[in-house]
Amino acid sequence: MRVTLLAGGLGGSRFARALCETLPPRDVTVIGNVGDDVEISGLHVSPDLDTILYTLAGLLDEDKGWGRADETWNARTVAEQLGAEAWFQLGDRDLGLHLARTDALQHGEPLSVVTRRFARALGVETELLPATNERLRTWIATPAGEFPFQEWFVRRRHRDEVDAVRFEGAEDALPAPGAIEALESADLIAIAPSNPFVSIGPILAVARIREALERRPVPAVAVSPLIGGRTVRGPADRMLARLAGGTGPAQVTSCYKGLIDALVVDEADAGEEAGIRTIVTRTLMSDAAARRRLAEAVLGVPV
Amino acid sequence: MRVTLLAGGLGGSRFARALCETLPPRDVTVIGNVGDDVEISGLHVSPDLDTILYTLAGLLDEDKGWGRADETWNARTVAEQLGAEAWFQLGDRDLGLHLARTDALQHGEPLSVVTRRFARALGVETELLPATNERLRTWIATPAGEFPFQEWFVRRRHRDEVDAVRFEGAEDALPAPGAIEALESADLIAIAPSNPFVSIGPILAVARIREALERRPVPAVAVSPLIGGRTVRGPADRMLARLAGGTGPAQVTSCYKGLIDALVVDEADAGEEAGIRTIVTRTLMSDAAARRRLAEAVLGVPV
Repeated sequence: MRVTLLAGGLGGSRFARALCETLPPRDVTVIGNVGDDVEISGLHVSPDLDTILYTLAGLLDEDKGWGRADETWNARTVAEQLGAEAWFQLGDRDLGLHLARTDALQHGEPLSVVTRRFARALGVETELLPATNERLRTWIATPAGEFPFQEWFVRRRHRDEVDAVRFEGAEDALPAPGAIEALESADLIAIAPSNPFVSIGPILAVARIREALERRPVPAVAVSPLIGGRTVRGPADRMLARLAGGTGPAQVTSCYKGLIDALVVDEADAGEEAGIRTIVTRTLMSDAAARRRLAEAVLGVPV
Repeated sequence: MRVTLLAGGLGGSRFARALCETLPPRDVTVIGNVGDDVEISGLHVSPDLDTILYTLAGLLDEDKGWGRADETWNARTVAEQLGAEAWFQLGDRDLGLHLARTDALQHGEPLSVVTRRFARALGVETELLPATNERLRTWIATPAGEFPFQEWFVRRRHRDEVDAVRFEGAEDALPAPGAIEALESADLIAIAPSNPFVSIGPILAVARIREALERRPVPAVAVSPLIGGRTVRGPADRMLARLAGGTGPAQVTSCYKGLIDALVVDEADAGEEAGIRTIVTRTLMSDAAARRRLAEAVLGVPV
């Protein structure tokens, strides 16, 4: 059974891991968000792709939820000593990846090729693809102004309420090579319990990816990021309340209108109107057993 | 007594240290070469300024002659694991400086301001200035083609013979703020025992710096990089042979025609025709006493 997953950062990476622990890793393709990519001091950083990559390679700092567990911070310490703002924290080994990626991109290697190469080098068998090789950037409109995603999310600690989300470059962005094929050849399409607006939204903003989902010949199932109307981490619940009018399954479904056939919801949200067929399970991926239970609930959707 | 020094990389940094150990450090201004600046994976690296900065801050790896002594290499190890070529080696703490500088430059801070700020942060009292804040890049013409300086020097290990040296951007480059004032207000102008073609040449290629030397009201003295017709390190002797027709004091003097009043030569080169007044001493800066002796020989030139 081949599964193609749309995934953002931490929730996406955990669910990608759940799938890869349940299915043969080669039977999973992950299409990752690049809307939160950012240039830091000249380096191209792809936070969501990297969180997925580090997770699948067993390198993620699970406590922080980003970066590498086995990390040193000498570059950052010096940069701060020299007055650099360092609001976006990059460890030394993490920097090594950003240096290698920036170098490869500057030499004309597409992001999808770089990402695949890095995955192989780190022993990851799952295919990990950026949604697009082109520049696609998420902008967040707030009462305090419009900010590039990471400015809002990291530097301002996503404290501003979100009025709107805009995907710069999305209209003309082509899917990365392999993404459409992965959607068309899958036995099941899954959407990870990521933020629908800023993690999955930028992927669906690539017109041909959205169209491939709309005309899917196989079931597509999303996992709700809500547990009892709240998200485990991050601003998705506040954004659902403000942008979709509530923090229940129906609001999650509304983000994926016409794109999914079922929604996996947590037991805490069971019985709430979802506007679509629901599968109820426990969705908190607290350990390997919990990850497997969630993956099996998703994979149990009849093909 | 105020001294303004033109300096390249290792020889320049060692002689800058010699001056700062002999005079009050605040009475020394160093104008450093930026012709070998390079973008590495998106980061702005200024190898000569950094070697001088690390030397004066007591941070230089004296064995290697570049980078920091107290260094780790985690970023580089990962970059290489991920297939990056890594021909230009950057340690983690060194990377911190390049990140901070790249960030500052991208925010519009001139290189001279960044450099001064970094020097203060590292406890360096000597004024260290880039020759120019503008883009000035050294190109090396060889039988195998023309290469950017670091491509030839580091990647190709300066094995190609040099047919010519070109300074891209030099014609229009203005001196960094403070450079002309430092030359005009000095009691003595010194040229370090650096490579005349690729370390001092790019500084003198800034027209207003060359003019300030030409009309100097005080003596200017250069230290020959030769010891017995050879350089301690680097390709200056081969370049002198090929581009100036020999490896004696006269060829060094010919590089500074009209710009110096005396040449400090090593005892091994005493008696050779120099075409200018010579001061003979031991020029190898092997320890503090040797550095002081050389500095005093230079400072002894009558003002």
